[in-house]
Amino acid sequence: MKEVRFFYVPDAGQQTELPAEEAMHAVRVLRLKEGDEMFLMDGAGSFYRAKVTMAAPHHCYYEVEERILQEPQWKGHLHLAIAPTKMMERMEWMVEKVTEVGIDEISFLNCQFSERRMIKIQRLDKIVISAVKQSHKAWKPLLNEMTSFKQFLEGHREGRRYIAHCYEEIPRTNLFDELQKSHDTEDVTVLVGPEGDFSVDEVKQAVDAGFQSVDLGKSRLRTETAGLSAVMTMHLGQQILQQ
Amino acid sequence: MKEVRFFYVPDAGQQTELPAEEAMHAVRVLRLKEGDEMFLMDGAGSFYRAKVTMAAPHHCYYEVEERILQEPQWKGHLHLAIAPTKMMERMEWMVEKVTEVGIDEISFLNCQFSERRMIKIQRLDKIVISAVKQSHKAWKPLLNEMTSFKQFLEGHREGRRYIAHCYEEIPRTNLFDELQKSHDTEDVTVLVGPEGDFSVDEVKQAVDAGFQSVDLGKSRLRTETAGLSAVMTMHLGQQILQQ
Repeated sequence: MKEVRFFYVPDAGQQTELPAEEAMHAVRVLRLKEGDEMFLMDGAGSFYRAKVTMAAPHHCYYEVEERILQEPQWKGHLHLAIAPTKMMERMEWMVEKVTEVGIDEISFLNCQFSERRMIKIQRLDKIVISAVKQSHKAWKPLLNEMTSFKQFLEGHREGRRYIAHCYEEIPRTNLFDELQKSHDTEDVTVLVGPEGDFSVDEVKQAVDAGFQSVDLGKSRLRTETAGLSAVMTMHLGQQILQQ
Repeated sequence: MKEVRFFYVPDAGQQTELPAEEAMHAVRVLRLKEGDEMFLMDGAGSFYRAKVTMAAPHHCYYEVEERILQEPQWKGHLHLAIAPTKMMERMEWMVEKVTEVGIDEISFLNCQFSERRMIKIQRLDKIVISAVKQSHKAWKPLLNEMTSFKQFLEGHREGRRYIAHCYEEIPRTNLFDELQKSHDTEDVTVLVGPEGDFSVDEVKQAVDAGFQSVDLGKSRLRTETAGLSAVMTMHLGQQILQQ
């Protein structure tokens, strides 16, 4: 897989032209020409081996030669719901990292103690696409617009659900310990709070809504580190279950 | 522990004055005054409750009121040796994150395919100190100057030693699986290569020197993500052994 040119093309199998930005990169940066081979990823489980049929300054047409269905790298639907940090660059790197490590869905929560109540999904989506390409992921994670904490709890969700927080006064178990009690095919959702944590009231609302109260280990982690730690924990939890 | 002011003071127990930068922060930013309480961390396992005895524009003197010995959060000596990335900011965040999560020693390797052959330890050390303070770590990780890969292999190291790489042709087992076969008191060293990976020859040299050849899971990770993943894996491996 070395030296292969990957391009992200939603519906790659139904299209014949690269999206504008990808075309720019293909033609002006990589200088691809008619007849050159490239790989397309549709973000929905397929890679395509394709050949350039026409390369013009702003356009790159292609013909699919082979569709290569990818095996999922993990089971169950992994979902991280997090209150974004005040500094957006901390969220940006987290989004890049959880995409590399592997995640199905990322939601952003507006919480009582949130220091950021708006996010630009478009910018984050570009970071996700770049990480998907860089790490050769066959599935592009779903990024959701910010919702209120309350609204998120009201949504229906299958599988195991957890709320990670730092209140020692509220009974908690450890996320990694809990994940080992589930099945590797189960969906998992983990909530991570803002810099000032969830409010005690929010933790109670989540528990009432069926979320289990958990910690992420002994270390005091920043919000974005906690998000990445939760995702890595989901994967190692699955690995234990598969042994 | 909320609203507590933490300052990093090596040999805090033998000193009576904050280092210049910490004094600046204490007096000019936090506006501490004579009689105010603060917490000092010596980076060597102790916190100190102290009282300000004199606060001048560039000086802050104190008197220790209580030494509070901290329990280690993990066993064994955890050591990450990594080839730094071309973009230094990627290493900087990794150093921040592994400090938050918990590490005893970080070494930097100059490898055959390294894209960066020099690093400024001083700048990284400031990031480590800031992360130690932020995450209330009682021990400050040791940061080593860059050494050649060969020189690193020649150093004597106790415990389990692993080299993580991406060559599917070289027999590998999984780091997390391997760590579950050890004891939680054993020292662990993990080597992570540069963007272009270790050379096949380097992997062979490490194996000959007693390192086990491992992968970090199914995902294709950037160097800095691999470093953090290795450290999180060490901790969850310990957690499994403690069950």
